[in-house]
This record gives sequence, C-alpha cells and structure tokens, in this order.
Amino acid sequence: MTSFAALHVPGRPLLLPNVWEFGFAAALAAAGHPAVGTTSLGVSAAAGLADGAPESRAATVALAKSLAPLDILVSVDLADGFSADPEEVADLVAELADAGVAGINLEDGRADTLAPIVVQAALLAKVRERVPGMFLNARTDTHWLGAGPAADAITRARAYADAGADCVFVPGLHEPADVAELVEAVDVPVNLLHLPGKATFSGLASLGVARVSLGSTPYRVALSAALSTVDSVRDGAELPMKPPSYGDITALLP
Amino acid sequence: MTSFAALHVPGRPLLLPNVWEFGFAAALAAAGHPAVGTTSLGVSAAAGLADGAPESRAATVALAKSLAPLDILVSVDLADGFSADPEEVADLVAELADAGVAGINLEDGRADTLAPIVVQAALLAKVRERVPGMFLNARTDTHWLGAGPAADAITRARAYADAGADCVFVPGLHEPADVAELVEAVDVPVNLLHLPGKATFSGLASLGVARVSLGSTPYRVALSAALSTVDSVRDGAELPMKPPSYGDITALLP
Repeated sequence: MTSFAALHVPGRPLLLPNVWEFGFAAALAAAGHPAVGTTSLGVSAAAGLADGAPESRAATVALAKSLAPLDILVSVDLADGFSADPEEVADLVAELADAGVAGINLEDGRADTLAPIVVQAALLAKVRERVPGMFLNARTDTHWLGAGPAADAITRARAYADAGADCVFVPGLHEPADVAELVEAVDVPVNLLHLPGKATFSGLASLGVARVSLGSTPYRVALSAALSTVDSVRDGAELPMKPPSYGDITALLP
Repeated sequence: MTSFAALHVPGRPLLLPNVWEFGFAAALAAAGHPAVGTTSLGVSAAAGLADGAPESRAATVALAKSLAPLDILVSVDLADGFSADPEEVADLVAELADAGVAGINLEDGRADTLAPIVVQAALLAKVRERVPGMFLNARTDTHWLGAGPAADAITRARAYADAGADCVFVPGLHEPADVAELVEAVDVPVNLLHLPGKATFSGLASLGVARVSLGSTPYRVALSAALSTVDSVRDGAELPMKPPSYGDITALLP
C-alpha cells in the first residue's frame, strides 16, 4: 500500500473524504479511494455527543478499529485529543497505530479559544516522539470561527511543523492570497477544508495545497438526504437519490 | 407522550423512519415526528458487521440508549434477537424497556430459512410474558426474499398475534390483493415496508395498513448522497443536496 505521506503532493492534492461509520468507508474503498479521514462532528453526532466531546473517544477508537480490515488508509480526527494530558493523548495515538491507523489529526481549538502555541507544540512533540511512524496532521483553528490574519495561521503552522507535524491544516482559510502565502511560508504539506463555492478542489490544487478534506460535509449531506427520503415517502414523491440496493450494501460487509 | 400503540391506526398508518445513528433521529424529533424505528442493516453496516449479526447486539443497545433523551418514541429492530436462547432475548428486551424503548421488532428469518412457527411463537410469548408493556412487532420473512403465497404470511401472522404480538410485519408483501387479505385476516395492526414504486405510503394506507416502515432505504439513500458528495467535490460540481450547516447539527447535540 502507498504510504500516506506520499499521497500529499502540493498542487495535486489528496481528496480526503471524511467518514463517520463503516459503510461509507467500505464503499469508498470499493470505489478505489486510497484514503479516508474521520470527522469528529459525524462521529460525535452519530453517538449523540457534542462535537469532539471527551466521551466521543470510545466511538472514535471503535470506528478506527472497524475500518482496519478495509483496503484503505485511515486518518483519524482526534479533535483536541480528548484529554488535557499529553501522555494520555500519546497513549491514544499509540493504540491507533497498533490498530493500523496511518494518520491522526490534532487541533489547537479548545472550546471558544485556542491552546497556547507552546502547549500545542509540546503535545505534538510528545505524540511525534511516542509514535514516530504516525502521519501527524496539525490543525490550527485560527480561521475556524471566522476570518483572521493569515499571519496567525502561519505562525502556528510553522511552530507545529517545527514540533514534528507532517502536515498543517487550517480549516476555514480560503482567500487565495492567504492560501498561497501559507503554502509558501511552511515547509510541510498544507491541508485545507473544502468549502462549497469558496474553496474548491481545483482552486486549492492550483494554489499548491497538498490535501483537501471534506470535513463534516458528507455527513451533513447524508443527513439531509435521509430527512428528504422520509418526506418523499410521505408525499409519494421520488426518492431524492437512487440508493444502492440492499445487496449492494451487504456485499460491503463481512 | 402518546402511547406507541395509539399511533398504529389502520388506514391512517404511522410513517416510521428507520434510523441507525443519533443525528438523524434528533433531526426527526426536531421536525415533529412522533416515533422512529431502527434499521438492523444500518446499525450493522455502520459498525462493520453483517446485517443482524450477533455482534451487532451491542451497537443496537448503544444506539437505543443514545436515543432515550430525545422527545420521540423508539422501536428497536432486534433482527432475530441476536441469540437462539429466548431467555437471553427476553433479557435484552427487558434491558431496552428499562432504557425507555417503546417497541421492538423480532423476525423469524434465520439465515436462508425461517424459524419453525412454534419456535418463533414461543419466543414472542416469552418476551410478551417478561415485558408486558413493550410494543411487540412480529416480523415474518415469508416475503422478504421473494414472492410467496399470502397464506404463508397470514398463517404466521395469526400465530404470532396469538402469541402476544401487538403488530405483524411482512416486509416485501406489496400486491394489493395480498395486502388487503392480510389486513382482513389478522386481528392486530399490520406493518408493511415501503417499496419505491411498489408499496407507496398512500397505497398502503388505502388498504388498511397501520404502520409503514422505511427499512434501510434512508440509510442507503444517505450513503448514496455521501458518495455523490465526494464525486461532486472532485469534479467541481454542485453538492447533490444542500446540507444543514455545522451549527444546525450541533444544535441537535447535547
């Protein structure tokens, strides 16, 4: 299997669909996708928990382990690591490595604020030291809750790369000049979030981005489709999309 | 809250959407739906297990418990009960009752065959005796794997109603004459499966059906929508459906 790192090519980005359950990942593997991420929102919402809640750790690990038999590389969204103790986060990453996980994602967002740079850099360094082979995607939330100066993202991205991150992720960043500046400023591949109409796959590719994540968009579209299905049955209308058959699904399962 | 039984009105059927995770159920509750079922295919596929596999018992219970805080009645699809021991199945139903579950679904399908009528009737009687307040939907798979004489479904439906079932479910049955014959022949409400183009909500209503389940259709449509989302991002096309926002989802969560 190709190494996960080799899929991160600036200008020819990895399109990384984010999954929250096995069936979608199995279908993506069957369709030839080389890799999937997980989505903390999807995993948390599916379990009835707040996004990234510490209680969602178990569901995150269970999902990661369920995906291990699939012929697809897996990167797991760990939100803030589900713990303020770097040792516990490193233990979690080691457990995931043992389960065959190729990459993880750790973010510096903490409720309504950001972890201090030195705190987050130390967390990343701890994880890097404990699990050298894990592809470490460092997310900074400087642009998650709204626009900010690109310099904020660059400062954090550089610090996290220096701490050992293999890739930096700035969800929400989308202004072309900002994207180009970030790509130029850091020595590791850049991951951005697809934003409908604002940050497109081809647009991000042309700016030198190496990975484009879909985040919670597939989960949210799927939820919309499920709700619309109920309405269409009630109203005697066509289903919103033609579904795979029951047999198509069971063929994806053990 | 309305009793679940009161929602089963012949000719004015309960439309029962089947869920496999919390977010969809929470959105249905927010939209005013009075009840949801679960789908064994969806729950199993989400966990990476074969449909109704004994190992899916834990995921089924976890889902049921996660739905308890919602203002919606819940009926849990237990497939064959995940055990050949009626005592174990009754224990499971008692556990679900304690968790606030309003109804359960037990089927007589066993791999490629059907349980003997007396065996399935004894199972239903055991569950009925142990948990008198649980709404017990008895599914017969006489028509699940293809057409059969309606008399087969009627024989089993009557036996299961005599054993204490509150409602009988014959997924796959859709010929209008067969549906009318079944409704006429049994003394309890009849539940059928919506089948696009073959068994419509209004058509089943006009035949006296009391509950229309969506089965795995919402799960399968959601999976299709998620896959289509990935393709649309890759191709720079519109998303297949407009999704709810991130904030719309988090508003549904604790």
